[in-house]
Amino acid sequence: MSSTTPEQITQWINDSVGTAQDNGFKVVALRPLEADCILPYQQSQLRAGGTLSGPTMMTLADAAMYAAVLSHYGKQLLAVTQDFSIHFLAKPSQNNLQANAKIIKAGKRSVVLTVHIYSQDNLVALATGTYAMPTK
Amino acid sequence: MSSTTPEQITQWINDSVGTAQDNGFKVVALRPLEADCILPYQQSQLRAGGTLSGPTMMTLADAAMYAAVLSHYGKQLLAVTQDFSIHFLAKPSQNNLQANAKIIKAGKRSVVLTVHIYSQDNLVALATGTYAMPTK
Amino acid sequence: MSSTTPEQITQWINDSVGTAQDNGFKVVALRPLEADCILPYQQSQLRAGGTLSGPTMMTLADAAMYAAVLSHYGKQLLAVTQDFSIHFLAKPSQNNLQANAKIIKAGKRSVVLTVHIYSQDNLVALATGTYAMPTK
Amino acid sequence: MSSTTPEQITQWINDSVGTAQDNGFKVVALRPLEADCILPYQQSQLRAGGTLSGPTMMTLADAAMYAAVLSHYGKQLLAVTQDFSIHFLAKPSQNNLQANAKIIKAGKRSVVLTVHIYSQDNLVALATGTYAMPTK
Repeated sequence: MSSTTPEQITQWINDSVGTAQDNGFKVVALRPLEADCILPYQQSQLRAGGTLSGPTMMTLADAAMYAAVLSHYGKQLLAVTQDFSIHFLAKPSQNNLQANAKIIKAGKRSVVLTVHIYSQDNLVALATGTYAMPTK
Repeated sequence: MSSTTPEQITQWINDSVGTAQDNGFKVVALRPLEADCILPYQQSQLRAGGTLSGPTMMTLADAAMYAAVLSHYGKQLLAVTQDFSIHFLAKPSQNNLQANAKIIKAGKRSVVLTVHIYSQDNLVALATGTYAMPTK
Repeated sequence: MSSTTPEQITQWINDSVGTAQDNGFKVVALRPLEADCILPYQQSQLRAGGTLSGPTMMTLADAAMYAAVLSHYGKQLLAVTQDFSIHFLAKPSQNNLQANAKIIKAGKRSVVLTVHIYSQDNLVALATGTYAMPTK
Repeated sequence: MSSTTPEQITQWINDSVGTAQDNGFKVVALRPLEADCILPYQQSQLRAGGTLSGPTMMTLADAAMYAAVLSHYGKQLLAVTQDFSIHFLAKPSQNNLQANAKIIKAGKRSVVLTVHIYSQDNLVALATGTYAMPTK
């Protein structure tokens, strides 16, 4: 694990992914193989029913995976999502979302991760995915 | 299948999902169980490597599924994504994305769909997912 | 949670699923929302490379989910897998496999679960899935 | 695409995967990037409700993917499933299952495939997955 800070990883993601900057995504804590992230609530995240849209949570989950990958492998901005799946468990309220991304396989070619997404301490979604590392 | 038009479905989705309006998402054609959609290219969709971000395609795929569901079941805006998975196959270029959503199981409680996403006629991603229909 | 024993759940699954009996699948411990299971090693589980086949682990994961569902909901044998996904993380050795199934959403219509599969205490696969509960 | 026959691929899979032989799995037709396979009905495939078990279809889907990979890449028996997901759409009857596996991305490092599973010409399940090719 490289000794980068949450602010540094947030900056890298903001520079790499256009939308991350606009939506206020932030890495708040890093541990070996793990990244904790926050997505501030914005009205544009709403969908019919007064809850947050699925893509809002997908976007957060993907960015949190990217944060864990960059923290573990260093500034490999060309790492890309290869596959991604998510189950929605409960409807998040109109509040910030928290995400905990965890690397469960740190391979040379590919990285497998899980992301737990919480709204007010309730688990609202679970995502799993694979990032492909850039070939030399 | 209700006799709604692509413009009508586009409007419903714009009204229901905050971000759909901003990103220019459009339903362009409807057939029984199917919806063809377009996501216009915007610079904010870019990520490191000069390609479009994963969440851009996830957001399109989810909206295209929603379009097919609304077209088949009528104005059931409270239908929500239950699970969603996507494989990324090729890097899209800086152009509009096309999506074809198809209902492969139209149940009373849940709907299973596939979405093929194309960039310049190349298949760049394949998504599958389940929408849960609102209970009466 | 009904007060069934691991032996009782094992018996229900053996009675319900033809192959479970043959392959020696066993529930070994139950906790609220969780079931620990074992699949004894058999030579027929091998595939090229001297490792256990993917379907061996899929079959174990699905049965472990079923065990957690039956433990939580009682003898609802008509609960069926609705969707299932698995990531393979490491190659299991020629030994028994352990599986821990956990319910992360216990809905009335559907149940979402994760299964961690271990070989000699190493995590070798992670599965997630949805069981659909029978309608009355 | 190597010029192997369905019989040849069936034989390779029987030699590579212990259980394939027992369950009567057979490749019946090959086309570029595609393999059609059959799993003969056996009573042991049954589960509560008089339908075929989920793992029966998962096992068929995985073997059909393997068949398409071996047909396209040649005798690469060490190709292994990396991720696998399946949606169950309808309950198969007590009859043979048909599977059509199709490569949708034929990469050097990884192969992405879909499998449609039919029972009596009805689509009963759709699987997607990734095979990892052996590194030299």
